[in-house]
Amino acid sequence: MDTGFVAALGDWRTRSGPLARTLAAAVRDAVVDGRIPAGTRLPSERELARTLHLSRGTVVAALDVLRADGWLHTRHGSGSAVRLPARLTERTTPWSLDRGGAPDADLDLTLAVTAAPHEAYRAAVARAAERSAPLLVDSGVATAGLPRLRELLADRYTRAGLATRPEQILVTAGAQAALTLLLDHLHTDRRAPVVVENPAYPGALAVLRARRARLLPVAVSPRVGWDTDHLAAAVRRHRPRLAYLVPDFHNPTGAHMDAPARRALAALADRHDLTLIADETMRDLDLRTPPGGEPHLAGARVIQIGSASKTLWTGLRVGWIRATADLVRRLCRNPLQAQLAPPPLEQLIAAELLGEPLPALLDDRRARLRAQRDHLTGLLAGTGWTCTVPSGGLTLWLRLGDDGPSATDLAARAAARGLAVTPGPHFAADRATLTHHLRLPFTATPETLTRAVGLLRECAVR
Amino acid sequence: MDTGFVAALGDWRTRSGPLARTLAAAVRDAVVDGRIPAGTRLPSERELARTLHLSRGTVVAALDVLRADGWLHTRHGSGSAVRLPARLTERTTPWSLDRGGAPDADLDLTLAVTAAPHEAYRAAVARAAERSAPLLVDSGVATAGLPRLRELLADRYTRAGLATRPEQILVTAGAQAALTLLLDHLHTDRRAPVVVENPAYPGALAVLRARRARLLPVAVSPRVGWDTDHLAAAVRRHRPRLAYLVPDFHNPTGAHMDAPARRALAALADRHDLTLIADETMRDLDLRTPPGGEPHLAGARVIQIGSASKTLWTGLRVGWIRATADLVRRLCRNPLQAQLAPPPLEQLIAAELLGEPLPALLDDRRARLRAQRDHLTGLLAGTGWTCTVPSGGLTLWLRLGDDGPSATDLAARAAARGLAVTPGPHFAADRATLTHHLRLPFTATPETLTRAVGLLRECAVR
Repeated sequence: MDTGFVAALGDWRTRSGPLARTLAAAVRDAVVDGRIPAGTRLPSERELARTLHLSRGTVVAALDVLRADGWLHTRHGSGSAVRLPARLTERTTPWSLDRGGAPDADLDLTLAVTAAPHEAYRAAVARAAERSAPLLVDSGVATAGLPRLRELLADRYTRAGLATRPEQILVTAGAQAALTLLLDHLHTDRRAPVVVENPAYPGALAVLRARRARLLPVAVSPRVGWDTDHLAAAVRRHRPRLAYLVPDFHNPTGAHMDAPARRALAALADRHDLTLIADETMRDLDLRTPPGGEPHLAGARVIQIGSASKTLWTGLRVGWIRATADLVRRLCRNPLQAQLAPPPLEQLIAAELLGEPLPALLDDRRARLRAQRDHLTGLLAGTGWTCTVPSGGLTLWLRLGDDGPSATDLAARAAARGLAVTPGPHFAADRATLTHHLRLPFTATPETLTRAVGLLRECAVR
Repeated sequence: MDTGFVAALGDWRTRSGPLARTLAAAVRDAVVDGRIPAGTRLPSERELARTLHLSRGTVVAALDVLRADGWLHTRHGSGSAVRLPARLTERTTPWSLDRGGAPDADLDLTLAVTAAPHEAYRAAVARAAERSAPLLVDSGVATAGLPRLRELLADRYTRAGLATRPEQILVTAGAQAALTLLLDHLHTDRRAPVVVENPAYPGALAVLRARRARLLPVAVSPRVGWDTDHLAAAVRRHRPRLAYLVPDFHNPTGAHMDAPARRALAALADRHDLTLIADETMRDLDLRTPPGGEPHLAGARVIQIGSASKTLWTGLRVGWIRATADLVRRLCRNPLQAQLAPPPLEQLIAAELLGEPLPALLDDRRARLRAQRDHLTGLLAGTGWTCTVPSGGLTLWLRLGDDGPSATDLAARAAARGLAVTPGPHFAADRATLTHHLRLPFTATPETLTRAVGLLRECAVR
């Protein structure tokens, strides 16, 4: 027999648990890993039993588990083939957060990301593949972005009230890549500190630390938002030239900047020759009904960066910078850009999805996230832990009680029980404070959130 | 009529030249830009004339030019559709280097890159698109790489004599991304300098400069190779902890490290606690017949990095690190990795191409590059300029005469005549020296190389 199927299962016997369930889990994992392509026909039960040195009964039991969970499609007379269960392609929770809802799975609540919108994304990939020929006869080197994608992104800003020409858009391999490129141009005085929020998006902290930038943290909280007075005082005193802010559904706190604060910050930047980098990655994930429609944080000294990684899929790795056409031209000449520009094919896929299909995709996504957020806040009621319900984004910022374990201790205990969560210090500019906060993403399914909060509560009282 | 076709042409009237040729060039450029998809049916001649405010005769003449150049396919009774000419899909020279061989095109000899292997790449994209479904139900966040791709890359090393397990491979968004990630772990003492070659690969210099690393340049030349004695002395004196080297068909010089120098460097690294990062991006572009088969630069203190950007296509943006499994695990936990990992779909495409199809693809590519290199060295005979014929890679390192203009002056004069070339200082660690060198890639067609060298000779005597 073809031993490819069995080889693709890897070292599955090292897992614990009953053999039939373990075998079923190994097949499931191999399908999602792509080691066994969906549609692959299974060897016969007898062949499987022989090659795997298992009893026929164990193999039959494993296949029954797979069939019951939707991983196996059996057509009379032509055997069984593996497939993706429909419930996986119809949810926004990524498979690895709970292994597709497997009751024995470890839970991962460290990631604030969603699965791709399955059918629309597959159609976009197929269409991009069809249209890839002209790209392949060229060099594939970094440019400012595919013309169609730059036009589409410029149009979105213009329709939102921020007049933008395609020449003002630079397509990057995500928001972190955008920040890296901008820092290389704007962070030229290494003594001048860079304003960051506290807590902050860890991806941005990593980029700043790699450049050995001095950080100037300003507090943000989901309840009171940005402390603009403190920020103004810090700017006057420490003379930063740069600030990195997430005004829309801030990661991790979910805080959302109101219109007066946006105006105040833009004016402050003007007055003090401070460049604001506004990361709008979460902006489209407004969970209010109806959405709020605050203006962009904008002004002569504001550069917007964005990404499709949260609204579409992290695996796309497409983001962008909106700046003056002149700065975009200069950024394009940066030798770092070669590593910070997304592959042309991914840009084609982005262009397929960020236009006409986007509003419906976002509506669906927002509805699911809203339900998951509400489920999570419901679970937290009565725990003694507190949070402000975020009006958008993907995460909730939980304050633990002072008399319980620290977030780091709680995370360690949870990890021992198979639940991964990220404690507050991970988001702290100094890596040490925020010891009684946890970031909880509501990208998981209600079932998984219920299991996770239950586990956390058990760990807290242990 | 549908005005999309005309809109997609953009501001074509701003170009100089006869109207019919200009219109034809605008259509050609719009097809390669993807603004007009290959296969699009043209409006009728009468409609085009009316919408573009041109005479019918001008439109007919433009279409005749396109048809003669292979950009238009006319089927009796069903009108004309745009397409890519077969000669474009069958060459390794990227379109933008000479606009597909257009006699009026500016020439770009600044890029040492090739077009994709067209048919094989298209097939790989289509197959990856078919297999993308399992990826889309997961998070798309950075991992160490798709299991199939890591296995395939580990196998290649093992078959080349360097035993490697998949756990030792970390897939990155190219060699520059690999270097960025490695520096973030290994370049921890900012006072210790980093050894680089002089001249060096500018992409690596950019990454090192962004980290504000101190550079310790050591000379490399295509004739005498690496000055290992000088390197040993510099290591003893300046105590670098890190070195970045391109031992295989070095960019820009084409130098190739012999086996004794490889052994000497690995021993030096061992002795002085120096980590060598060996960039093997060019290794598969061995133009000798038969290929030489020098061993990898390898040892306990050597980390190999590689990339498919030169052997397959720069637009793929897939590279990798080969290190200890322990270092790979640590690199995976680096928050920078999120921006330095390639999209899963591109990894699928890489896995389709880097296995069984690769040897035939490389043979074809090497034959074309060899012919282009030989054509270029033939053109340079009798110019008074000197070079060592490179035994591999994509570029030739030209030494100009001392009595003529500097490379920077020559490049400026050539630019004024529509030829872009990169002068030596661009590759210098100090950005100032190497004033009488030029890098000439032989990725262009023989016709383009002939035009380019002719222009350079004219500019030199002016």
